Amino acid sequence: MKLASLRNGTRDGRLVVVSRDITRCTDAAFLAPTLQAALDDWTKYRPHLEKLAESLESGAVPSERFHEHEALSPLPRAYQWADGSAYVNHVELVRKARQAEMPESFWTEPLMYQGGSDSFLPPRAPIIMADEAWGVDMEGEIAVITGDVPMGASAAQAGEEIRLLMLVNDVSLRNLIPAELAKGFGFFQAKPSSAFSPVAVTPDELGDAWRDYKLHLPLLVDLNDKPFGRPDAGQDMTFDFARLINHAAKTRPLCAGTIVGSGTVSNKDPDHGPGRPISQGGRGYACLAELRTIETIQTGHPSTPFMRFGDRVRIEMKDADGHSIFGAIEQTLEKPEGNN
Amino acid sequence: MKLASLRNGTRDGRLVVVSRDITRCTDAAFLAPTLQAALDDWTKYRPHLEKLAESLESGAVPSERFHEHEALSPLPRAYQWADGSAYVNHVELVRKARQAEMPESFWTEPLMYQGGSDSFLPPRAPIIMADEAWGVDMEGEIAVITGDVPMGASAAQAGEEIRLLMLVNDVSLRNLIPAELAKGFGFFQAKPSSAFSPVAVTPDELGDAWRDYKLHLPLLVDLNDKPFGRPDAGQDMTFDFARLINHAAKTRPLCAGTIVGSGTVSNKDPDHGPGRPISQGGRGYACLAELRTIETIQTGHPSTPFMRFGDRVRIEMKDADGHSIFGAIEQTLEKPEGNN
Repeated sequence: MKLASLRNGTRDGRLVVVSRDITRCTDAAFLAPTLQAALDDWTKYRPHLEKLAESLESGAVPSERFHEHEALSPLPRAYQWADGSAYVNHVELVRKARQAEMPESFWTEPLMYQGGSDSFLPPRAPIIMADEAWGVDMEGEIAVITGDVPMGASAAQAGEEIRLLMLVNDVSLRNLIPAELAKGFGFFQAKPSSAFSPVAVTPDELGDAWRDYKLHLPLLVDLNDKPFGRPDAGQDMTFDFARLINHAAKTRPLCAGTIVGSGTVSNKDPDHGPGRPISQGGRGYACLAELRTIETIQTGHPSTPFMRFGDRVRIEMKDADGHSIFGAIEQTLEKPEGNN
Repeated sequence: MKLASLRNGTRDGRLVVVSRDITRCTDAAFLAPTLQAALDDWTKYRPHLEKLAESLESGAVPSERFHEHEALSPLPRAYQWADGSAYVNHVELVRKARQAEMPESFWTEPLMYQGGSDSFLPPRAPIIMADEAWGVDMEGEIAVITGDVPMGASAAQAGEEIRLLMLVNDVSLRNLIPAELAKGFGFFQAKPSSAFSPVAVTPDELGDAWRDYKLHLPLLVDLNDKPFGRPDAGQDMTFDFARLINHAAKTRPLCAGTIVGSGTVSNKDPDHGPGRPISQGGRGYACLAELRTIETIQTGHPSTPFMRFGDRVRIEMKDADGHSIFGAIEQTLEKPEGNN
C-alpha cells in the first residue's frame, strides 16, 4: 500500500491512497482524515486502507491523477524525528578527514540525534535559507514510520512496529555544525526542516528488497541533473531499522507516527580505498560533505562547494523494473523572498 | 485564561478551561477538541475560549471539579520540545565541578537541545525507569508554548508568539549523559519523557510576575515532602523566552504548539560563594545534579544520591497570595511492573 498527504490548505494535508505505479490516487480522508490519524489507530484503519488500495488498482473506485508536486511530506509535521547514523562508514570517513579518532563503540551502539519534526518541507518545495555561507548540504536517507513502541522494546519487537518507509532529504547546514556540536548539546540550528518523499509505502510493497529490516536498493541522488550518488541502502548499514528503533526506545516509549531515519546512505569501496565519485566508476555519495571528505583525504582540502543558490538536488529510488517507488524529492536552494 | 487537557482515553485528551483558582473547569471541547487544535487556529479560538473562561468565573456555565490527577500534560504530545539552558549559572557550576572551562559565548548565545516530544508524562504519573543506576534526576523548569514563528523571526517578533506558560519536570538520566554527549550528537536516551504542569496559562494571568519575557516568581521544588529548591525563575535568567524562541527559529519556522523550555532554574548566591541548600538559608536547587555539583566543589565528591525508587518530586509555583498557578507536578520514581 502507498499513501500520500496532498496539499489542501490544512496543516496535515488530505490522506490519499496512491497506485502502485504512483500515477493515480484516490481519496482516503473519508476513512482517516490524515496519515497521523491512520497511524494513531492503524489496526482499525489498515484493512480499510488496503481494501481501498486494491480497489484503486482494479479501477473499482474513482481516482485522480497523482501529482508529486501537490504532495506534502507524508507526515507534514510529526511528533518525533529521530535520525540515526547507521552507515558507520560515513561517520568514519568524516572523522578521518578531520583526523579525529572514532570510538570503537560506534560499531556496536547506534549514533542518533533528535531532529525537529514540527515543520517538514514538501518534497518539491525549495530549501529557503538566508545565507549560502551556512554550507547547505543534502543528506539522502531512508526512514521508517513506526507504530507505538513500548519503552525497552527489543529489536525484534521494534521491527514489528515498522509501518511505512520513505526517503528523506535531511538538509544540513555544515558550516553551523562545528560550533553547535562544540557546545555539547547536539544539533539544533544546523538541522533545519527536512523533506520526505511524496509517497510512503508499507514494507510489503518492497518485496525482496526489504529484508533484515534494511532496504536493499540503490538510492539515486542527482545534483543539478547529474548523477551524484548511487549507494545501495542495504549495503554497509551497520544498524538495521529494528535496532535503530530499539535504541530510540531504550528509556521512553515512542508514539505512533515516530519517524526513525537511517542517516546518510554511504557505501565503502574497499577495492579502491575511500569511495569514488560516479565519474570514476564509484557509487558516489548521498551528501556533499562525503565527497568533500574524500577530497580532503586525497588532496588535503575540499574542492567541491556546498549548495549554491539555484542548485537542485533530486533523491529517488527505483524498483528492479526501473519504476519510482516513493516519487522524487526535488528541491532547489533559494533565498528568502525580498532578500538579495 | 487557564487551560488543561483531561484524560479521556484519547491520545490528546479533552480540552477544558480551568478557573483562576484551579478548583473548577468547564468543557471546551465543543469549541476546539484539543489544545493543539486551539493553537493551530488561535486567532479564531482564543476569543471564544476567553469568553468561556469569563463565564466560568462568573458561574454562568456548568462546571465540574478540576482534579489535577486527571490532567494529562497540557499538550500530551507535541510537535516540538526545544529546551534551552537559560540559567547560565547552572551550566557554569556543572562545568566548574568537572573542572571544564565554559566558553565565553555561553553568555551571549543560548544553549538549546532538541527534546523528544511524542510521549509526555501526565503531571501526576510515576516516572517509570528500568534502572535506578541510570541516575534519575528531576529538572524544574518554566516553558512556553508558541504560535507559528516564521524562520528568522527577531526576538521581539518571537515574544509576540508566546501563547501559554507551563512548568516542566525535564526528567534526566544523569549517568547516561556523559557517554551520550561524548558521541557528539546531543541527548537522546539521557532525556526520557518530560512531564508538564496540569494547567497551562496565558501570560496575562501572571500579572506583574510576567515581564521582560521572564516569569518572576520562585519555583517550588520539593523532594520527599521537604523543600529542596526555591529559586526565582526571573532571576539569573540570562536569555529570556523571546530570545530563546528567536534562537530556535534562526534556520527554520516553528509550528504552533512548539514548546520552548528555560532549562533548570538556578540562582546565584553571590554573597556566599556557590548556591546554598535551603537548610543553610539558601535558595536550594531545581535538580539534584546542582546540589551534587556544589558538594563536589566543596568536598571533592557528591554526597546526595540521584533519585531512588519510591522518591517523590513535587514542582509548583504560587502567586503573591499563595495560590497555586499551574497546579503541581508530582511524580514518584517507580520500577516497571513485574520488574523486581
